[in-house]
Order: sequence, then C-alpha cells, then structure tokens
Amino acid sequence: MHNTRYESGLAKLKEIDGAAGEAVIESLQIIAPDLAHYTIEFPFGDIYQRPGLDLKSRELATVSALTALGHCAPQLKVHIHGALNVGVTPEQIIEVIIQMAVYAGFPAALNGMTVAKDVFAERGLLDETSTA
Amino acid sequence: MHNTRYESGLAKLKEIDGAAGEAVIESLQIIAPDLAHYTIEFPFGDIYQRPGLDLKSRELATVSALTALGHCAPQLKVHIHGALNVGVTPEQIIEVIIQMAVYAGFPAALNGMTVAKDVFAERGLLDETSTA
Amino acid sequence: MHNTRYESGLAKLKEIDGAAGEAVIESLQIIAPDLAHYTIEFPFGDIYQRPGLDLKSRELATVSALTALGHCAPQLKVHIHGALNVGVTPEQIIEVIIQMAVYAGFPAALNGMTVAKDVFAERGLLDETSTA
Amino acid sequence: MHNTRYESGLAKLKEIDGAAGEAVIESLQIIAPDLAHYTIEFPFGDIYQRPGLDLKSRELATVSALTALGHCAPQLKVHIHGALNVGVTPEQIIEVIIQMAVYAGFPAALNGMTVAKDVFAERGLLDETSTA
Amino acid sequence: MHNTRYESGLAKLKEIDGAAGEAVIESLQIIAPDLAHYTIEFPFGDIYQRPGLDLKSRELATVSALTALGHCAPQLKVHIHGALNVGVTPEQIIEVIIQMAVYAGFPAALNGMTVAKDVFAERGLLDETSTA
Amino acid sequence: MHNTRYESGLAKLKEIDGAAGEAVIESLQIIAPDLAHYTIEFPFGDIYQRPGLDLKSRELATVSALTALGHCAPQLKVHIHGALNVGVTPEQIIEVIIQMAVYAGFPAALNGMTVAKDVFAERGLLDETSTA
Repeated sequence: MHNTRYESGLAKLKEIDGAAGEAVIESLQIIAPDLAHYTIEFPFGDIYQRPGLDLKSRELATVSALTALGHCAPQLKVHIHGALNVGVTPEQIIEVIIQMAVYAGFPAALNGMTVAKDVFAERGLLDETSTA
Repeated sequence: MHNTRYESGLAKLKEIDGAAGEAVIESLQIIAPDLAHYTIEFPFGDIYQRPGLDLKSRELATVSALTALGHCAPQLKVHIHGALNVGVTPEQIIEVIIQMAVYAGFPAALNGMTVAKDVFAERGLLDETSTA
Repeated sequence: MHNTRYESGLAKLKEIDGAAGEAVIESLQIIAPDLAHYTIEFPFGDIYQRPGLDLKSRELATVSALTALGHCAPQLKVHIHGALNVGVTPEQIIEVIIQMAVYAGFPAALNGMTVAKDVFAERGLLDETSTA
Repeated sequence: MHNTRYESGLAKLKEIDGAAGEAVIESLQIIAPDLAHYTIEFPFGDIYQRPGLDLKSRELATVSALTALGHCAPQLKVHIHGALNVGVTPEQIIEVIIQMAVYAGFPAALNGMTVAKDVFAERGLLDETSTA
Repeated sequence: MHNTRYESGLAKLKEIDGAAGEAVIESLQIIAPDLAHYTIEFPFGDIYQRPGLDLKSRELATVSALTALGHCAPQLKVHIHGALNVGVTPEQIIEVIIQMAVYAGFPAALNGMTVAKDVFAERGLLDETSTA
Repeated sequence: MHNTRYESGLAKLKEIDGAAGEAVIESLQIIAPDLAHYTIEFPFGDIYQRPGLDLKSRELATVSALTALGHCAPQLKVHIHGALNVGVTPEQIIEVIIQMAVYAGFPAALNGMTVAKDVFAERGLLDETSTA
C-alpha cells in the first residue's frame, strides 16, 4: 500500500532526523496516521530528495525558517538534531539563529537559541560550543 | 449592569465551549474582568449569534484559523472542545487540521494535531478516530 | 511522466479554482515548474481529494486561514473564487471573514474583505451582497 | 574589550529589566555569548538610549508588540517587569494588552494577559489591579 | 437603530482617524456594512473610550503593533495619521517604528517606515523630521 | 562621526546587495537616517562580518526566513539579488523557496517565487533556470 515516495521518504527521515523524527511519526498514529504519511511523503519523499541543494544547506534553511516563524519549537528541536546529524556544525547552527535577530527580531532569535541549548545539552555539546 | 449582548453572549459561550470557556472567563476576573466582558460580548454576543453561517461551520473556521496562526494553543484547545460540543465530528476536525499543512506549513498542522490529540484523549475519543 | 496524483489534482484544481488556479500554475512554468507540480499533487491531488470533509467546508476553512494569516492576498483571491465555484454563498464568505476579526484582529478581517470585494466585483455580485 | 555601547547598554538593561534581564543574558553565556552581547548593545545600548521617546512609552510599545506577535511569552514577561520597573502602572499594561484584541485578535490578548497575571502575581499586585 | 456604542465610536473614529477612518468605513458599505458597524463599535466605541490610557499612548501602541505584525500596511497608514491627529509627534512615531527592528526584525521596521514616509509626505512633514 | 562598524558594514552592504541595498539606505535619509545607520551597523557591520558561516549560506538563510515570514517582499527582493551577487545559483534559490512550502505553507512559497521571478527577469536569468 506504501508507494516509493513513502519508502524513500521514510529512509530520508531516518537519515536526517533519526529517533526524533520517528517519534513525531509514531505520535501521530493514534490520531491522524494520514498526516504522518503526508509528512513522510511530501517533505522527506519529495523535497529532501531533490538534488539541487545539499542536505546541510537544506537543514540550515529549515533552522532559519523555524526560528524566524517563532511558533515551531518542537519542529525546530527535531531539525537542530537533524542538522547536526547531517554534518552541520554547532557553530553554524548558532550563526543562523543569531542572524534571525536581524530578520525576525531578538525574541525569535533568543527563543531559537533556547531550543538549541536544549538540543546541544542532550548531545553533550555545550562545552565545545561555549566561547565565554 | 450587563446588557443583552453580554447575556446572550454568555449563553452562547456556555452552549459552545462549556466548562472550558467558563474557565477562561473565570481566570480573567482577578486581572482584567473587562477583557472577560469583551470576550463574551463581541465574539459570543455579536459574531457567534449571526444567522449567516451555522455554528458547525463557524467552529471549523475557528479551528482552521487558530491552527494556521500557530501561537494560539490554549484557544485552539477550547475551540476543538467547542466544535465537538456543537456536533462537528472528530474526523472533520482532523481534516481541517491536516489541510492547514497546505496553507500554514507542516509545523502548524503537527502542533494543531497535538492539541487535538489532547482534547480527544480527555474525551475518550482516541480509539474511535484512529484508523491505523 | 505524470502520475495519478497529478492528473486527479489537476482535475480538482480546475473544478475548484478554474481559470484563476490555472493562471497560478502557468505563471510558475518559466521559473519553477516543479513547484507547480507539487501545488497540483499535494494540495489538490492529496488533500482536496479526501472524503472526510465536503468541498464547501474545505474552501471556507481555507478562506478562514488565509484571511487570518494576513500575508496571502493572491491566494485568498483564488480561493474566494474557488469557494464561490463550489457553491459557497457570498454571505458565508463574508461571515467567515468577519469572524476573523475575533481571532486575527480587525486589520486581517478588513484586508480580507478588500480582497472579497474585488472578487465579488469581478463576478458582478456586489449588489446582491450589499445589505446597507 | 567591551565598548561604550556595551557598558551603557548593560546599565540600561539593569535599570529596565533588573534581575529578569540579567537572567536572560546569563542563560546565553554557555551557548552563544555573542548573542548576549548583541542583545545588550543594540536594543539597550542603541535603541533604549535614544532621547526621542521616554522609557515608559518605549516599554508600553514593547508590551504592545510582544503581545501582538504572540510567540514571545518569555520576552513579554521580562518587559512587563521592565514596564513596571520604569513606572508604568499595572492598569496601563492591562489597557495595552486589552487593546491588542483589536489589532491581533482575542487569543493574542488573552495569552498576553496570562503572562501579565503571572508577573503581577510574582510582585503581589493582583489585589490592587482587580476591579471585579 | 444605532446604539450609544455606535454613536460614541463614530465620534471617536472621526476625532482620531478623520477622513482616512471614514474612508475605511465607507468602503465597507457595499460589501459588509456589519463589519463597518463592528469596527466602529468595538475598537472605537469600547476600547478607545476607556479612561485607563491616554489617546496618544493608545495610538503609539497601535503603531507599534501594526508595524510588528507586518501585514497591516493600510491600517498602519490610517493610524499614523491618527497618531498625528491626536498630538503624537513625527519624532515619536519614528522612534516607535525604529524600536520594532528589535522585536520584529529590520524588514518590519523598514516597511513601517515606508508607510510613515508616505503619510508624512502627504502632510508636508518630511522637511521637519529629516535630520540628515 | 562614523565608527568602524559603520564603515565595514557599508562595504559589506555594497558587496552583498549592491545598488538595491544602497537604494534602501538612500530612501531612509529623508525620514529616519538613524534607521539607515542601524541597518548598516548591526546586520552588515556585525552579523554579516562574522566568520562562522560563509556569505552564501547566510544569504540562503535570509532568503529562507524572508520567504517564510511572508510580509517581507521588498527585503526578499534585495536579498535574492544579494544571494546571486555572492555566488548562490538561481537553482539553489529556487530550491530554498520551494522548501518553504513545507514549513510556511504553499502561499508563502508561491509569493516568494513571484519575487524571485521578478529578480531573475531583471537579470535576464529566466531562460537559464526554466526546466519546463
């Protein structure tokens, strides 16, 4: 019943977001499994498969947008994990979030940094990124 | 001291939102009772009284907008209760929230679904709506 | 090369949005034909095909969300046409836009009404809806 | 290494936001101390130093914008403290938040009032502002 | 048929927004006269009548919020006129818009300033406010 | 009177945004020259000078955020020019804008693409990027 978009999307979701992505999908099964299917098929089966932009740049673009929008903390958390999983450095993530102070204001950047801090703490990265 | 708009608004608030709506009003009494009055008078005394659109459609429009806006989780919770109270089905609520992935993006839809999941769980509805 | 989602999506797009929808797709051909494909496949080939909610309710939900978001005037115009095309009445559209004053503020409702006024004027509907 | 903008910004931050502002800066040290610097230098070292508008009006404008934006609860909390610290009255804060129901919708105003209620409770102000 | 809220609201609308406000109301008559009524009754008949905050502060709060929200250019234009009409100075308006760069980002502040520039030009104020 | 941040910011603004950036600064001189100064000093004198992320990635992050926010068309236009000026390819810009359909919805992506189409047309790039 699952098509190729679903299967390649699920593989890409696992590659990028790992356990955090699978948890999102799992949490939808009891209420709206079709939304889980669409989340796998369109973002991960269509968009993240496209050859025109490398995965690191895609994840940085996503971290940028989710920080700017401001109401997407759970998804920002998943994609900061995802960015790190595909090789984006903690420093690059911090740079993109700081840059959002210019375009979406300081509150959006500060709230995005709070999410990054949680993710970095989970992964034991806080000592490395601190430059204080 | 209360006018007709207030009285008919309060009756409509109780009809639609039940205990959840009254809790919102109650929580405002100590800080800004006038905002409670306006909330009863304008949305419920003016708008939800209007004959040009049935209550089910009004609640679906509200669920749609609150999901899309993304920063209104407490109000979305109240109005998913409200939609169910006036006869909207769980399936219709799920459909509107899924549709918001198109217009406001997947994070808004996913966060809206998390709120719906909480409401459905409170009301013992999760087994019925699951189609996994 | 086009799959069934594309074909059924294109038929649904024509049914709902008519010439206005086709113009959106056409305008994308020179810059990003893949975005045109996705617009046909996901919203119209997946979402608007779903049986759980009738087309009139879907279009009202879309008019509601686009009015509330506030930065989607071109899409709101297309979907007010679409709502009328599938049988939503001008009065129902006006009701949903007025209701958005409650959830997204008066500016969003007023700007949405300006778009509705343009669409109604194009279709010669302004005399019928006026109740002044 | 710190310039005058930093020093005058830090003094202004302490004047306006007190301990709540310093906590924000402190929480950034382990992840992004440069964002802490910018937060002190640009908003507090540049903008809040400007003579063209008094501090009370600046804080009311900030409370207004943060309430309207809707995704800035932590910053709204800091600036409601800040507004009170520079002499804005609880009543004036309540008035500005109520007014946002007009421009950003009732959910934004209600959520802003919830933040104000928390701040007023922390400062033992709830009895004075209640008019119920 | 018009109640006191309507009459006092209409007087307040004329006091604050003058011809620009009346044009908004007039433009609604053919499509949604009820939205015109609500716009007069709730914002101007209820909120702007309240004694707890002076009109200058209310208009500055509105300019702040409309600049930050970013999708309200027509209403921002009306309220920059309104602010000037009730005695806010051009400099104070400029200060509030600049301040929004901190909270909503530079694009929102720059677009708000473009609207202010149009209003100031209409009123022959640009020479006075320029400090270049 | 201008500090080093201003001078290095102005050089960076010219490097990235060229004539389009200078036009923004020029248009502010008659109304709010201080906002022009801040725009040069903070975004271009502070943020775009930072070594932790290359200019191409910074411009892609900006295009991403401005597309997602939805109310920043003038700034998006300037930064699509800027992205091209620093070596981002038209294809990469298109990819980032398409990706925003996932995170901010199809209307935001479609409106962003309309801006890209205008910029690409100005620069004679539309034949190269078309793949229809």
